Amino acid sequence: MKNTAILLIDCPDRKGLVAAIGEFLYKHNANILHADQHQDPANNVFLMRVEWDATDFAFDLADFPREFEGIASRYNMRWRLERSDRPHRLAVFVSKYDHCLVDLLYRHQSGELPCEIPLIVANHPDAEKWAAFYGIPFHVLPIEPGKKAEGEAKQLALLKQHNIDLVILARYMQVVSPTFVAAYPHRIINVHHSFLPAFIGAKPYHRAFDRGVKLIGATSHYVTDDLDEGPIIEQDVVRVSHRDALDDLLEKGRDMEKAVLSRAVRWHLDHRILVYGHKTVVFD
Amino acid sequence: MKNTAILLIDCPDRKGLVAAIGEFLYKHNANILHADQHQDPANNVFLMRVEWDATDFAFDLADFPREFEGIASRYNMRWRLERSDRPHRLAVFVSKYDHCLVDLLYRHQSGELPCEIPLIVANHPDAEKWAAFYGIPFHVLPIEPGKKAEGEAKQLALLKQHNIDLVILARYMQVVSPTFVAAYPHRIINVHHSFLPAFIGAKPYHRAFDRGVKLIGATSHYVTDDLDEGPIIEQDVVRVSHRDALDDLLEKGRDMEKAVLSRAVRWHLDHRILVYGHKTVVFD
Amino acid sequence: MKNTAILLIDCPDRKGLVAAIGEFLYKHNANILHADQHQDPANNVFLMRVEWDATDFAFDLADFPREFEGIASRYNMRWRLERSDRPHRLAVFVSKYDHCLVDLLYRHQSGELPCEIPLIVANHPDAEKWAAFYGIPFHVLPIEPGKKAEGEAKQLALLKQHNIDLVILARYMQVVSPTFVAAYPHRIINVHHSFLPAFIGAKPYHRAFDRGVKLIGATSHYVTDDLDEGPIIEQDVVRVSHRDALDDLLEKGRDMEKAVLSRAVRWHLDHRILVYGHKTVVFD
Amino acid sequence: MKNTAILLIDCPDRKGLVAAIGEFLYKHNANILHADQHQDPANNVFLMRVEWDATDFAFDLADFPREFEGIASRYNMRWRLERSDRPHRLAVFVSKYDHCLVDLLYRHQSGELPCEIPLIVANHPDAEKWAAFYGIPFHVLPIEPGKKAEGEAKQLALLKQHNIDLVILARYMQVVSPTFVAAYPHRIINVHHSFLPAFIGAKPYHRAFDRGVKLIGATSHYVTDDLDEGPIIEQDVVRVSHRDALDDLLEKGRDMEKAVLSRAVRWHLDHRILVYGHKTVVFD
Repeated sequence: MKNTAILLIDCPDRKGLVAAIGEFLYKHNANILHADQHQDPANNVFLMRVEWDATDFAFDLADFPREFEGIASRYNMRWRLERSDRPHRLAVFVSKYDHCLVDLLYRHQSGELPCEIPLIVANHPDAEKWAAFYGIPFHVLPIEPGKKAEGEAKQLALLKQHNIDLVILARYMQVVSPTFVAAYPHRIINVHHSFLPAFIGAKPYHRAFDRGVKLIGATSHYVTDDLDEGPIIEQDVVRVSHRDALDDLLEKGRDMEKAVLSRAVRWHLDHRILVYGHKTVVFD
Repeated sequence: MKNTAILLIDCPDRKGLVAAIGEFLYKHNANILHADQHQDPANNVFLMRVEWDATDFAFDLADFPREFEGIASRYNMRWRLERSDRPHRLAVFVSKYDHCLVDLLYRHQSGELPCEIPLIVANHPDAEKWAAFYGIPFHVLPIEPGKKAEGEAKQLALLKQHNIDLVILARYMQVVSPTFVAAYPHRIINVHHSFLPAFIGAKPYHRAFDRGVKLIGATSHYVTDDLDEGPIIEQDVVRVSHRDALDDLLEKGRDMEKAVLSRAVRWHLDHRILVYGHKTVVFD
Repeated sequence: MKNTAILLIDCPDRKGLVAAIGEFLYKHNANILHADQHQDPANNVFLMRVEWDATDFAFDLADFPREFEGIASRYNMRWRLERSDRPHRLAVFVSKYDHCLVDLLYRHQSGELPCEIPLIVANHPDAEKWAAFYGIPFHVLPIEPGKKAEGEAKQLALLKQHNIDLVILARYMQVVSPTFVAAYPHRIINVHHSFLPAFIGAKPYHRAFDRGVKLIGATSHYVTDDLDEGPIIEQDVVRVSHRDALDDLLEKGRDMEKAVLSRAVRWHLDHRILVYGHKTVVFD
Repeated sequence: MKNTAILLIDCPDRKGLVAAIGEFLYKHNANILHADQHQDPANNVFLMRVEWDATDFAFDLADFPREFEGIASRYNMRWRLERSDRPHRLAVFVSKYDHCLVDLLYRHQSGELPCEIPLIVANHPDAEKWAAFYGIPFHVLPIEPGKKAEGEAKQLALLKQHNIDLVILARYMQVVSPTFVAAYPHRIINVHHSFLPAFIGAKPYHRAFDRGVKLIGATSHYVTDDLDEGPIIEQDVVRVSHRDALDDLLEKGRDMEKAVLSRAVRWHLDHRILVYGHKTVVFD
């Protein structure tokens, strides 16, 4: 397993930031593997991702907050430190459509997704065979009508019990409440089956078909309290024509959904995403 | 110059249509070059485009309505006949942004667009140098505030005088009135600088930038009375990232606008588009 | 299950073809669902695909050769009739890389691939768990060094015994012999992990990485005696950059391989492909 | 006009590089606008591009070599400094096909290409009208058969006289000699009308058509002594089908050629390209 540390920073832009961070890391014997900065001149914001080999690092990463405190407060930084030796723990939520779940599980097994998947949560039992195949505990926790609070409380307890870091809504057909969102701020990723902001809401393929668009798309985004309005992580499209019936749109769309969701999950797990206002910076 | 005839048909679907049309054309010695059909099972509609070499055709194309009348009425067809030896006459409307105009004029000169362009209409004088370069009469006909009806009346008179078949709004920054639209039903092509139906209306790039989308697009469509709601002809997208400032979106978008508008014009001139409900069939 | 008949034709182009075929089908009460023609002026070839609802067809499809013989010989047609009620029987060949196999099996279960898959043939045992999951017999038939003829004879016997119509080489890492190819002319589909004809042969990703290309691709094609030279069915590409290590190319490439192979299989099963010289026509 | 400095570096990777460069720039009051690094672990190479606002920089940029010498030699750097207030001077070479030339000139006028274009060199007179329109001196310098050395000597003298920094071969149909290449190392950009390394050499569209590929492409690259083997800067593709005749490939290809060439020129002028072995790093 890789043993790297990833530092993500955003703060007001000013002179000396790169020098201060570079000097700090050099002084503590960091071997920088990747570094990427972005300056937003309109908002005077500096954003940075830097990853280094932690093997020879001068102090234990547990002490990072104390050691970095001086620089962080001097430059008024928001920051977080991630560690590749502490892979995220991910819960996948699913309903009946299982293509995104199946895609994620296969990529996980292939080594594309550096994480643990200790559980799958479903409001329908249909996907259980996949959980069984991959040996992942499968929890059917349907949300009863009018009892969303109780249902979500059970889900949240389960997530807490398993130390879940990231929740993936893999075509999970329930709107999650503000309470649920608050428990995982910018740590719930959803896939919407349209090229947002086109066709926000229900039945986007039907509406795309009726409108006669020539491309259909899918969007992965962090979930916020505003439905389909969270920070966009990735989008992609595929061409359709008059020869495509509604069912063809659904079928072509599935491949887009898998693509944009799996890329979003991968980037999140690689700690490449910084949420910034209502947008994301995806360091590449 | 090619000497072909193109027949475009839509009618209720029923048995015998292909046989009837095939027999009619064969009987009159048509050498079919292309034929394409589409059946829409949901609405039970049959749509067809057939193109033949008119050189040895049995009768003068001017007599086509009389000769085809029997079949057309038996099958309840809407149809039109187009002739490659009668190229469309096209008017380009432009404001200050000239990239779409310049692209169309170059493609025309290169032989990509089989049409005549007898005039350019502008509400700003800026594009005149291009008209002069290509030797195309340039008419500055600004629409005075509160005097749209008078302004459009002048424009329509000019179009009529020049026997214009097709109007291209090449980033023309004026909404045309229902009266204008009615004079050229499904014969006005506009380019909207977003991936419709996302960002309908004004300043789509600004709104795409604010929303943090990962792809921006452009859409060409026939103009109807509902702004930005006409039948879509073509759409395309380009990837953007956090590194792209608003100006970069505008710049990348220009290439999309040129692409979707020029394809739409080309397909219209090749008589490959059938408007069908609120959608288009683009025969390829 | 659909009950349709698909007729695929190629012949020298001449007047009356559409009329003759249309008349034949109408006379026998065919309800045409799709029809598509292509004329190749350079080679004077006419190609056609027509699909009709066989429910009310005037005679049993088993009698089609006899009934169609007159037209076929008059116009010097090569033709074949396919029936949607007789789904193709498909064998998937696989080695160690299982992503294409897994993708095909999932699409088959989802109803995207109208076929039966009675067996999987492998030269390594690794993929057996997938066969077990989907309940498909799994045959490990390795090709011993120097004993390709014997090994392939066993494979061919197995295919014959199971009435296999189509062989899919899903990243099967063996070159098949001319004898094998001759048994399934234009009925073996391979996926090559490059954008052919770039990087023909071994280790295309390594060579793409060394060359510094900015896009990598994958190609599905019918297998012929010339390695990687068979008629191309589908190709696609994905963008790479200096940030992508060789492993990233392999990973991104897997998604392309799945895409181009599954589309090729789908189109073959829908009887939309005509091989024509060294090329394919894919009717859409 | 922007007043920024751009420093491009490559050197053996080792600890302290980012700190040293960051400290140097901070010490001299640089306001960093963009910074991007790339580490190549396979070859242990560090590559960096950093751009800063030169307005308040501590010393005159003319003194940069002397001031930076210490760091550069300590870390064994290859480096160059570019200045946005000294726009590159660009010569466009053209033959008969003028679409790339026309595209570049329009983008230049639109402000997309930060450079001066003091001359156009042609071996045919056809493109002169464009030079006249844009007011750029146009030099017809044909290469006589057997007299390449003399012809190129005249061209090189002209380029030297006009202090040309970058030569663009905009579908210029002459192979340039090693002598010419040596005068502008990694400063000659060519566009090849195929997706290299597919269809190296002459008539790539004809060969793509004959091979039956499903995508055609174009490639921009730096010119080296090995024809079509120089470091690739950009590539793009467009879909084709059996409906596309050879002429359609040429037409669709023109749009790809314009796209990949103009992007390459833009990136070169923005000093975003580092040639590295036989490849390019394009900082974005």
